[in-house]
Amino acid sequence: MIYMDYNATTPCDERVVEEMLPYFNNKFANSASLYRPARETRKAVEEARKNISLLVGVLPDEIFFTSGGTEADNWAIMATALKFQSKGKHIITSAIEHHAVLYTCKALEKQGFEVTYIPVDNYGIIDIEQLKNSIRKDTILITIMHANNEIGSIQPISEISAMAKEKGVIFHTDSVQTIGKIPCNLKELGPDMFSLSAHKFYGPKGIGALYIRKGLSIPPFIYGGGQEKGKRSGTTNVAGIVGFGKAAELAKQEMSTDIIYVKKLRDTLENKIKESIPEIILNGHPEKKLHNTINVCIKHIEGESILLSLDFEGICASSGSACTSGSLEPSHVLLAIGLPHEIAHGSLRLTLGKYNTMDEVEKVASVLPRVVERLRQISPFWQDKK
Amino acid sequence: MIYMDYNATTPCDERVVEEMLPYFNNKFANSASLYRPARETRKAVEEARKNISLLVGVLPDEIFFTSGGTEADNWAIMATALKFQSKGKHIITSAIEHHAVLYTCKALEKQGFEVTYIPVDNYGIIDIEQLKNSIRKDTILITIMHANNEIGSIQPISEISAMAKEKGVIFHTDSVQTIGKIPCNLKELGPDMFSLSAHKFYGPKGIGALYIRKGLSIPPFIYGGGQEKGKRSGTTNVAGIVGFGKAAELAKQEMSTDIIYVKKLRDTLENKIKESIPEIILNGHPEKKLHNTINVCIKHIEGESILLSLDFEGICASSGSACTSGSLEPSHVLLAIGLPHEIAHGSLRLTLGKYNTMDEVEKVASVLPRVVERLRQISPFWQDKK
Repeated sequence: MIYMDYNATTPCDERVVEEMLPYFNNKFANSASLYRPARETRKAVEEARKNISLLVGVLPDEIFFTSGGTEADNWAIMATALKFQSKGKHIITSAIEHHAVLYTCKALEKQGFEVTYIPVDNYGIIDIEQLKNSIRKDTILITIMHANNEIGSIQPISEISAMAKEKGVIFHTDSVQTIGKIPCNLKELGPDMFSLSAHKFYGPKGIGALYIRKGLSIPPFIYGGGQEKGKRSGTTNVAGIVGFGKAAELAKQEMSTDIIYVKKLRDTLENKIKESIPEIILNGHPEKKLHNTINVCIKHIEGESILLSLDFEGICASSGSACTSGSLEPSHVLLAIGLPHEIAHGSLRLTLGKYNTMDEVEKVASVLPRVVERLRQISPFWQDKK
Repeated sequence: MIYMDYNATTPCDERVVEEMLPYFNNKFANSASLYRPARETRKAVEEARKNISLLVGVLPDEIFFTSGGTEADNWAIMATALKFQSKGKHIITSAIEHHAVLYTCKALEKQGFEVTYIPVDNYGIIDIEQLKNSIRKDTILITIMHANNEIGSIQPISEISAMAKEKGVIFHTDSVQTIGKIPCNLKELGPDMFSLSAHKFYGPKGIGALYIRKGLSIPPFIYGGGQEKGKRSGTTNVAGIVGFGKAAELAKQEMSTDIIYVKKLRDTLENKIKESIPEIILNGHPEKKLHNTINVCIKHIEGESILLSLDFEGICASSGSACTSGSLEPSHVLLAIGLPHEIAHGSLRLTLGKYNTMDEVEKVASVLPRVVERLRQISPFWQDKK
């Protein structure tokens, strides 16, 4: 099997699993308890928090564990709305956010909030002037993602932070696709809050975090036993957090090497696709883009047919985000960058990771043109065109 | 180390860990994806859902995975409040709920909801007549726990279900302390919703579920990619769910044997404590009580001093719920059953599980009187009394 869907999820690094293992049935104590074994699990949790904070350049105290990036996004948005609704009910986001942000905003619209969706250019970069002009007196939150999960485009987070700070508006960024993947000094980038997720960089699923800048206080999203300094209740998922921490530690140590390696694979594959398949569009910004992401629209055929054919050949790829696969709607991201429906439908996302090899790249590069050729032969659109 | 804090958390059964292991870095696919490996993880998730549904006698379709019992409680309460607020803003709960329920209710009070807290008798059983009389036209939710985490008292869930149904009020029960521990046919017991948690019965932390009766629809608590049939978004925690499912399967097979074994240990320890330590009060209902739970108030000394002394002897126990340890407030549960502050402060909770042995019981039974004797010698209250 060749796995090229690293933006959907990644396998745990073996060292992550090894680190987690003792916490399932040996060091299993509830970290809120008083006895020694609990102090040990607490220590492990704090060690993990430190490793995560070091990866992103913030204080350990600013990291609050959640069940994942989606919960972190929901928390940041819902709690800000709840707390600051007396100041105003206007939120700004972008048209290409992950559904964890978009649908949370939609839910708030039903509760009387107003949401502005900033458009993006053909490269998937937001219009910063339009963002500036959209800020109103009653704007309480800007939430704009760091890198897009489908096309990899990276937003100008520093500029948005500066603008938000100047206007006194809270800025949250969904950095699930960047943290652990590319160098991110979030303190320098400057958002008030950001979301992160372990399973996007070789950590386990079911664990993530929300960074909340010191000095900013938002209410809890989940109430109960008072874990995470009263901000996020629920028995601490010690094993998950330990795995998350190890993944962060490894990312810090190995990221620069991994990036060079993965980028070379990606560039090779992208070039081979460009050379061998006619009538395609490469999506995303040419430079301001994740080094592991290829998103290509292959005209006159359906993305889903490509995926099924690739699956048959043992290749795992995606046609958008994993969450919306199975849906017949074309990706909202591809529509937002201006692609017409029929082209957006023919999208293929190949996202690479550290376990891919040049042999796998060669294999995909040789299989894909064959698959496209075969599908186009039976496509009425392609026949019409010819 | 002797671990007697099974109501706080349990170690994973080795078979649970074994079952989970492949899902970290071998079968790691995002279960929302289209390719074959994703279909395999999806199948594993549905297999787990089935095992959990079989354990509690409901349909697999009625089980929605969450990050744990606390999230399930928050979801049930918050979403019901949100959906039915136009019908009314009155919620009924009990005075001895877990903080996951109590503090969620408190948060709703701040948002304009009214909450009635039904008292309990000296055994910790709710006053069912008072519950009945508290139901109003604008009551939209009753949320009362199945078994109490501190004293083990078991509430008359069937009666409450019948009453709620008659009055057309939604009934949720926090059954985190019963499911997987004692036989629970939730379909027969009849609540509209119940919360459960894997780590209370030898499954992993960070995974739980909310049962929502077929026909009842509440809005999501976490929005995003549309996992769990659109009801609970966030990348599926496959390994956690697989562990949860295995724990449920094992509970179903082995529960009856485990109960006999654990109850014998508990009864032995409880009797020895009664015989060897004067001036104590055993809390909880004599029969309607979890078979693994001992909650005892040892007069004239502090619970926390007992815990520290036991910890020194390698014994892990609790003075209430794990969540509130470290707090100086006495347990709200012990106050609710009518104990005065000074006695509630001297509480000790010993909760047993399948890995305890009779040797451990003997050890605790011999250490505890010695510890109590020593602490009483330095207690001014005890000296006064004598």
